[in-house]
Amino acid sequence: KMLGRVLCTVLFVGALPSLAELSQGHISVVLLGATGDLAKKYLWQGLFQLYMDQVSSGHSFTFHGAALTAQEPGQRLMFDVLKKLACPPDESPNRCAVLKDQFLKLSQYHQLKTAENYTALNREIQTLLHQEGLQEAGRIFYFSVPPFAYTEIARHINSSCRPPAGAWLRVVLEKPFGHDLQSAQQLAAELMTFFREEEMYRVDHYLGKQAVAHILPFRDQNRQFLDPIWNRHHVERVEIVLKETVDAKGRTSFYEQYGVIRDVLQNHLTEALMFLTMELPANVSRAEEVLQCKLQAFQSLQRLEKSSAVLGQYQAYASQVQEELQKPQGYVSTTPTFAGVLIHSDSLRWEGVPFLLASGKALDERVGYVRVLFKNRAFCTQSEALRDTGHSQCAAKQIIFYIGHGALSTPAVLVSRNLFKPVMPKGSWREAATRSELRLFGQALSDYYMYSPIKEREAYSVLISNIYHGRKDFFITTENLLASWAFWTPLLDSISHQPPRLYPGGVENQHLLDFEMVSGAVAFTVAEPAELPNPGKQMPSDYKTIQSTFRQSPLVSAWAEDLISQLASDIEQAASRAVAQRGQFHLALSGGSSPAVLFQRLARQHYAFPWKHTHVWLVDERCVPLTDAESNFFSLHKHLLQSVRVPFFNVHPMPVHLNRRLCVEEDGGTELYAKEIAALVANTSFDLVLLGMGTDGHTASLFPQSDSGLEGAQTVVLTESPVKPHQRMSFSLALINRARQVFVLVLGKGKHDITSLVSRVGTQPRKWPISGVSPSSGQLVWYVDYEALLG
Amino acid sequence: KMLGRVLCTVLFVGALPSLAELSQGHISVVLLGATGDLAKKYLWQGLFQLYMDQVSSGHSFTFHGAALTAQEPGQRLMFDVLKKLACPPDESPNRCAVLKDQFLKLSQYHQLKTAENYTALNREIQTLLHQEGLQEAGRIFYFSVPPFAYTEIARHINSSCRPPAGAWLRVVLEKPFGHDLQSAQQLAAELMTFFREEEMYRVDHYLGKQAVAHILPFRDQNRQFLDPIWNRHHVERVEIVLKETVDAKGRTSFYEQYGVIRDVLQNHLTEALMFLTMELPANVSRAEEVLQCKLQAFQSLQRLEKSSAVLGQYQAYASQVQEELQKPQGYVSTTPTFAGVLIHSDSLRWEGVPFLLASGKALDERVGYVRVLFKNRAFCTQSEALRDTGHSQCAAKQIIFYIGHGALSTPAVLVSRNLFKPVMPKGSWREAATRSELRLFGQALSDYYMYSPIKEREAYSVLISNIYHGRKDFFITTENLLASWAFWTPLLDSISHQPPRLYPGGVENQHLLDFEMVSGAVAFTVAEPAELPNPGKQMPSDYKTIQSTFRQSPLVSAWAEDLISQLASDIEQAASRAVAQRGQFHLALSGGSSPAVLFQRLARQHYAFPWKHTHVWLVDERCVPLTDAESNFFSLHKHLLQSVRVPFFNVHPMPVHLNRRLCVEEDGGTELYAKEIAALVANTSFDLVLLGMGTDGHTASLFPQSDSGLEGAQTVVLTESPVKPHQRMSFSLALINRARQVFVLVLGKGKHDITSLVSRVGTQPRKWPISGVSPSSGQLVWYVDYEALLG
Repeated sequence: KMLGRVLCTVLFVGALPSLAELSQGHISVVLLGATGDLAKKYLWQGLFQLYMDQVSSGHSFTFHGAALTAQEPGQRLMFDVLKKLACPPDESPNRCAVLKDQFLKLSQYHQLKTAENYTALNREIQTLLHQEGLQEAGRIFYFSVPPFAYTEIARHINSSCRPPAGAWLRVVLEKPFGHDLQSAQQLAAELMTFFREEEMYRVDHYLGKQAVAHILPFRDQNRQFLDPIWNRHHVERVEIVLKETVDAKGRTSFYEQYGVIRDVLQNHLTEALMFLTMELPANVSRAEEVLQCKLQAFQSLQRLEKSSAVLGQYQAYASQVQEELQKPQGYVSTTPTFAGVLIHSDSLRWEGVPFLLASGKALDERVGYVRVLFKNRAFCTQSEALRDTGHSQCAAKQIIFYIGHGALSTPAVLVSRNLFKPVMPKGSWREAATRSELRLFGQALSDYYMYSPIKEREAYSVLISNIYHGRKDFFITTENLLASWAFWTPLLDSISHQPPRLYPGGVENQHLLDFEMVSGAVAFTVAEPAELPNPGKQMPSDYKTIQSTFRQSPLVSAWAEDLISQLASDIEQAASRAVAQRGQFHLALSGGSSPAVLFQRLARQHYAFPWKHTHVWLVDERCVPLTDAESNFFSLHKHLLQSVRVPFFNVHPMPVHLNRRLCVEEDGGTELYAKEIAALVANTSFDLVLLGMGTDGHTASLFPQSDSGLEGAQTVVLTESPVKPHQRMSFSLALINRARQVFVLVLGKGKHDITSLVSRVGTQPRKWPISGVSPSSGQLVWYVDYEALLG
Repeated sequence: KMLGRVLCTVLFVGALPSLAELSQGHISVVLLGATGDLAKKYLWQGLFQLYMDQVSSGHSFTFHGAALTAQEPGQRLMFDVLKKLACPPDESPNRCAVLKDQFLKLSQYHQLKTAENYTALNREIQTLLHQEGLQEAGRIFYFSVPPFAYTEIARHINSSCRPPAGAWLRVVLEKPFGHDLQSAQQLAAELMTFFREEEMYRVDHYLGKQAVAHILPFRDQNRQFLDPIWNRHHVERVEIVLKETVDAKGRTSFYEQYGVIRDVLQNHLTEALMFLTMELPANVSRAEEVLQCKLQAFQSLQRLEKSSAVLGQYQAYASQVQEELQKPQGYVSTTPTFAGVLIHSDSLRWEGVPFLLASGKALDERVGYVRVLFKNRAFCTQSEALRDTGHSQCAAKQIIFYIGHGALSTPAVLVSRNLFKPVMPKGSWREAATRSELRLFGQALSDYYMYSPIKEREAYSVLISNIYHGRKDFFITTENLLASWAFWTPLLDSISHQPPRLYPGGVENQHLLDFEMVSGAVAFTVAEPAELPNPGKQMPSDYKTIQSTFRQSPLVSAWAEDLISQLASDIEQAASRAVAQRGQFHLALSGGSSPAVLFQRLARQHYAFPWKHTHVWLVDERCVPLTDAESNFFSLHKHLLQSVRVPFFNVHPMPVHLNRRLCVEEDGGTELYAKEIAALVANTSFDLVLLGMGTDGHTASLFPQSDSGLEGAQTVVLTESPVKPHQRMSFSLALINRARQVFVLVLGKGKHDITSLVSRVGTQPRKWPISGVSPSSGQLVWYVDYEALLG
């Protein structure tokens, strides 16, 4: 009865033609958590908006609020919310009032607690439809409940509330969707037992923000301008930022478990990042193609390291947590409330372009934006004073998707006027009047083409409309979700115990949270203020004087980082001297993880290194193809050779892969390498051999008790390693000891025991091969870090 | 007598101790061209300054003005100039007046025209010294005369005016020093017959500009700050700019021969560039080390192409030339009066950093500066409005050597406050009061630490002082000069007939001369205005339509340079497509001279080329070691591989040198290469094979009547060449014809006959191997230049 009456009213209000002809069927919307905060603030308003928009679509609707509260009080609570529903400014007050009245009549409260409650709801819907003679189009279940309640509700819906065949089910889920990859996988697996992938709509409300939702359409509609410049050759950097002024007060029980990365970066900012970096499908309105491209973009992201992020926590957070969670005085939380993260993509399009994501609470302003800054390649001959800045090619070139709040306090798309005049959809965005006094991102607002939405819409209204239209690309698929967690989880793990920098909050933060990129990582710009406790490591600089020899040879010792820096300088010095004296430098390098840091340092900080005159040899090699990640050469190539200009002819990988097979004796790899050395290295005396030392006292690939290499005159030998891959090729002690200089690098606590032992033993190469290193006329220097030396 | 009197006066004025004890000997300064413009404007004043500075040094002086003018009028002219000598503001008027009086008495005019005149001058100096009982310290001959007069004067000085043994000779030369490499070499060789290298002081007055002269000391004194950032990782770009408001009116007879590049860029701006880019010697005050490092820096500069420069000419220039040089109406001059040039260095330190040099006449302002702009790697969390810009890490970071004029109208060194507070020599530079209303290079002047010289000195005074001190590093050595001409001459040659863009002059130029960098080249930003005549070379674009196929395959034809450019683009496109589709690109390249230009172009102008995913193979190879200059691989390495980042594993030289011997059948080189191809190239079908064609119709190393490679299924073969080195390794026709694409490049008049012939013959590979190229399922494209095609 109720429905019939309402439909009549609709006919009266709208311009709906004959019911029988046009009915598209009935849609039941069930809002679980109907009296919760989110429902109060956004969801009911979104549903009302949906009703207003779709009342003439041919679909009929009923709205079912549900909660655990008993029928009577729950109903009262819910209708208190519904009565306050607002009419949008662009709607005629008359029409809105009538529609609101109808909406209230179409809405009902249900207590949903037990299995019977769900069965009853299902029956009620069926009865209603039967009475009104309506086909069922589908059912929407909106989960606005805590995640621990998901499974039970899902089970009930699946067992008792599925619509009949021919009608669809759409289940809308609100985050958090787990708090790391494993928990997300588990939750996803559980949900998959109740729902099919296409039935699930995971909400990231950022995808409903008008400026974010317009990134892909913008890229699509402006292909002609963006195609040549949307790449690493033209983009200088991208910033994706969400700043909040509020703090976590009152929400610490949630926040303490999640922190800013899980709360904002893993979802909202990552989704924006994907819209920017993904390849554009031919048709951006095909959800599947979009999702496919998005997943591919995830695959191109470089793994995050601990050093990819800077973390902060506003000072009041600790006491808020203590108070709200009844923690003891002195409780230390490492939950970050601010994070700045540097992300790189390995794709051909974006390689090397820094993507900076930043978000935090208790900051100086509330604002969200995505900013693409282009490289400026222009030289303006006319003096600055005479330039018309807006059109000068020397002014900054940027595209900004302004999400909201901040100085503009409206969503907007801004494009520098010296870039291009963008194509914008006439029906939904219009050129905004620029308030010329305002400056944004270093330029006057008048330097931009600026567009804002004709109708500003709440993200939730946009999303609810997209649920209704079945636009799955506005939601997070399981694959998408897991890809994002797979990307973020390693960083979350590595920082879980890292103390964030404390910041006072608000404008008081000043430059405390500014950060900068330093060789692939980020670091705060301003040093930790002295008045804040800094539990940094104490430098025992006096150690240096304690001991300056090791096994009768010179010893250089320092913390690892300083040691590497010293070693790199010493190698460069040796190289310059050799080149000055003999025209070339023969350098033999060992594999292993310690040298990798050294190699990177040599590649990045030693510009004067005479690489052009350097020959690079391998001290030892694993019998794997050179392109295998296990290969010493592969690692050397990755960390050093690909970044410096050693001529191809001067690179001498060990021939472990002759005739396309590995270290087969009759292929004569050792003889071949020995011959190559003899032909190029005067006296087979290398200028510098860099060695390491294993915990068993091995060096090069000469292991204890080895049959070859420890004695005798053979220069290059095949050996057996106790660990995989077993087969190795190696310099012999005889060859090593002919070198002009031998440096041994030993790093880390794990090497402390062997270092102590080796410091005491005599020359027993069969037992400890490293003890056999003793250049006959050259110099031996030990580079041992404090951890290895002192434990 | 005269001298004695003067020395007495000196004792009275200064604080000179007993003459006999301290006399350092006498210096005679001969200024040739004593009544010319330069002498009037700067040189006499510089000599007077030298006298004031060194009057108490222990040296005594005489100054000899000389010119072609007869004694009487010449003397009058000269003393008219001398009387106007100014006292510097920092000198006490009394002391200056006395010294000026002395200076005039120490100065004499000489007509120097004939050999006798020179002999007389020499005798006069000797007599004077003898009379005064003075030792001779040395003689300075300052050539302020047109270059055509150099040789004769030099001959006279050498034969008649050399000082006696024990005293030095310093000959000061003013530019121009030739107008290209050849003429500079010739002039240098001539001068070398008269003077030793250490006797010659070639003036580039820019080296006397205080801000330019301070570049090296600044780098030296600020090593602690600059060492980490003075490199490609931190420097975004460098601008070296000299803008003038004057035009060439009245000087067109000089200017028409030289133009802005020879007048300003080849010398002044290049010298500043060298000071910025050279490696810093351990001791910057050692002239020899400085010169050595400077020469090395020249060696690292990338060769300039036509596209490295944009050229302009102010509109009035043509009529000025017509008028002053009596040229016929309609005379077209292509002399540039404006140039913007993009320079790259290949050094590890600077690779990829754009150095922009710009200079012009009739511009909107007079100013000179060197600007080093650093990359900004900071993210500022605080909102713009709240930032203290001067110290914000997000503000621009720059170091500016402000040469003079412009808004500051004083030399200065500026360093952004967010960079570092520089160390400046207290005695000569002081922190300048910043006029905060002024903005410079996009920032308020208060955002910089700004220093200006305590004493502003004219460049010529600085240089004359350095001549006196024998500081050769302030002058241009022969090697330095020739290195600079060697660098600039190819550009000068390639643009000699290129019409420059016309510009109205002054502020009217607006954006007409703005330019920007586009893939390694520069181009004006604003399109050529339609109303200005553009007499560019007529492209015979109709040829393209004459013939668009060759031997039934597509033909691309153009002038060589355009053809290479097209081919390079097509290769890049093929590469991108292959990588997008199959993840890798297998490219097989031929040897020879034509591809070298192509390789260079690919290396320098195709930054988006997916080298990381490209495998490079050789189509053919000579049986010589890979490091032999005759080796195809060697040439490929030199022109391409050393400049791009192809992973080591993806480079596949032909194994012509196995077991340290060349192409011995039993070493199985051909089988090895065939196996490698089979293992890596799907279907042994290369993505792209690039071939050439010999005048005998050979291609790859498949020669007419070859026993191998022309027929049969073998993929890699050994062949015999009619020319040395005879032994070759080569792809077979069978392998070539399996490729997806085959491009054949034919360049030059020398190929016209065979091109005509091949266009007519059928498939006769034994006679003309090239005629056997016919990919079974791939595409064949001919790239033949107009010279080869049309003769």
